[in-house]
Amino acid sequence: MEEQNKVMLHGTWFSPFVKTVELALKVKGIPYEYVEEDLKNKSPLLLKYNPVHKKVPVLVHNGTPICESLVILEYIDETWTNIGPRLLPQDPYKRAQVRFWSSFLQQQLLQTLFAVIKSDGEAQENAVKELLEKLKVLEEGIKNFPDGISFIDHENLGFLDIVLLTMFGTYKVQEQVIGFKVIDPEKSPLLVSWLSALFELPVVKEGLPPHEKLVGLLQYIRQNALNSAPV
Amino acid sequence: MEEQNKVMLHGTWFSPFVKTVELALKVKGIPYEYVEEDLKNKSPLLLKYNPVHKKVPVLVHNGTPICESLVILEYIDETWTNIGPRLLPQDPYKRAQVRFWSSFLQQQLLQTLFAVIKSDGEAQENAVKELLEKLKVLEEGIKNFPDGISFIDHENLGFLDIVLLTMFGTYKVQEQVIGFKVIDPEKSPLLVSWLSALFELPVVKEGLPPHEKLVGLLQYIRQNALNSAPV
Repeated sequence: MEEQNKVMLHGTWFSPFVKTVELALKVKGIPYEYVEEDLKNKSPLLLKYNPVHKKVPVLVHNGTPICESLVILEYIDETWTNIGPRLLPQDPYKRAQVRFWSSFLQQQLLQTLFAVIKSDGEAQENAVKELLEKLKVLEEGIKNFPDGISFIDHENLGFLDIVLLTMFGTYKVQEQVIGFKVIDPEKSPLLVSWLSALFELPVVKEGLPPHEKLVGLLQYIRQNALNSAPV
Repeated sequence: MEEQNKVMLHGTWFSPFVKTVELALKVKGIPYEYVEEDLKNKSPLLLKYNPVHKKVPVLVHNGTPICESLVILEYIDETWTNIGPRLLPQDPYKRAQVRFWSSFLQQQLLQTLFAVIKSDGEAQENAVKELLEKLKVLEEGIKNFPDGISFIDHENLGFLDIVLLTMFGTYKVQEQVIGFKVIDPEKSPLLVSWLSALFELPVVKEGLPPHEKLVGLLQYIRQNALNSAPV
């Protein structure tokens, strides 16, 4: 079966959404070829594969492109059913919980974290306040997770663990760039122990982008945002 | 099986996301009880069921709440596998296409449409320009849809048709409120014929909110947004 399957991933080294897909492919044990894209000079192939958003990641499976990281994760889980662990649980309610929290992490939390990184002064204070509220919601959510929707209870990385790493895989980089702790172990003990368990795994450790290089990039993004913000 | 399943839907009459879930339940033929929520005075039950977003729709199945319309649609399809038509196609690539376009419709297009409704002058011109570009992208997308991801080729309403109606189910109301045509049949012939086919169906016709009442509400929302916009 593997011989018929040619898998290519178009990405860029710093995109957390690309990391999500890479991690899913590695957890499943699916061999793939990686193509680094220059987002300032997008390749004709990327524009052909993702004419709607013109973004990475794009997974190309036997010549057919699939776009959007969460859509790709579902596709991987539904296509390679006989290889590696299942990414989503079987039970419909647990699947719903995974999708609900994945969307919360990717849409709500990540957006707020970026608002913190791209602002200072009062705007940043407000963004931090919002972030802390959302982290509180997440901590409360984790407390009530049904069994088996995250790594906490399992041997293998699942869908939600992978999406959590999209959001927090490089939180130490983010903390270094903004100059203060984003995650307080006192207030988010469950999140911290979940993340610690994930960071122990070789597949996670090895997949992290180079720390200093990412610090440099985020500092550049932050400075750019601050320079162009209305005074 | 039906007797064990108690289904309640918490909603509000004007929410397109609630309509999405109602339509899915009707297409599947799942009996449910509807609870109208007053969003200005949210019930303790709604706050208990959706503490994260405090929003409708919430589907409560045998006492267990499921939130977010697209998550609920997947849940319905995965739970009632033996009742009514399947909402998603079987093929993983087609499923990926349905999810990709659903997310485009619900996140990208709906947001832009609301920006048009809530603005005037130059801001509205820009929003209209963006909307027209996105409609062009959608038309191009429809042209390349694989067989069987929408009603175009089928007897039954599927996931993507239902989400399309979230977005465009009341476009005539929107056109009346902003005073010009949103969808140009010359530029969007495939979208128009898709919508016309959907509007023929009794389940769609009967589910539309009262036209004049919705016009009044949208006019109020538009006026409120214009009054509070920075000059």
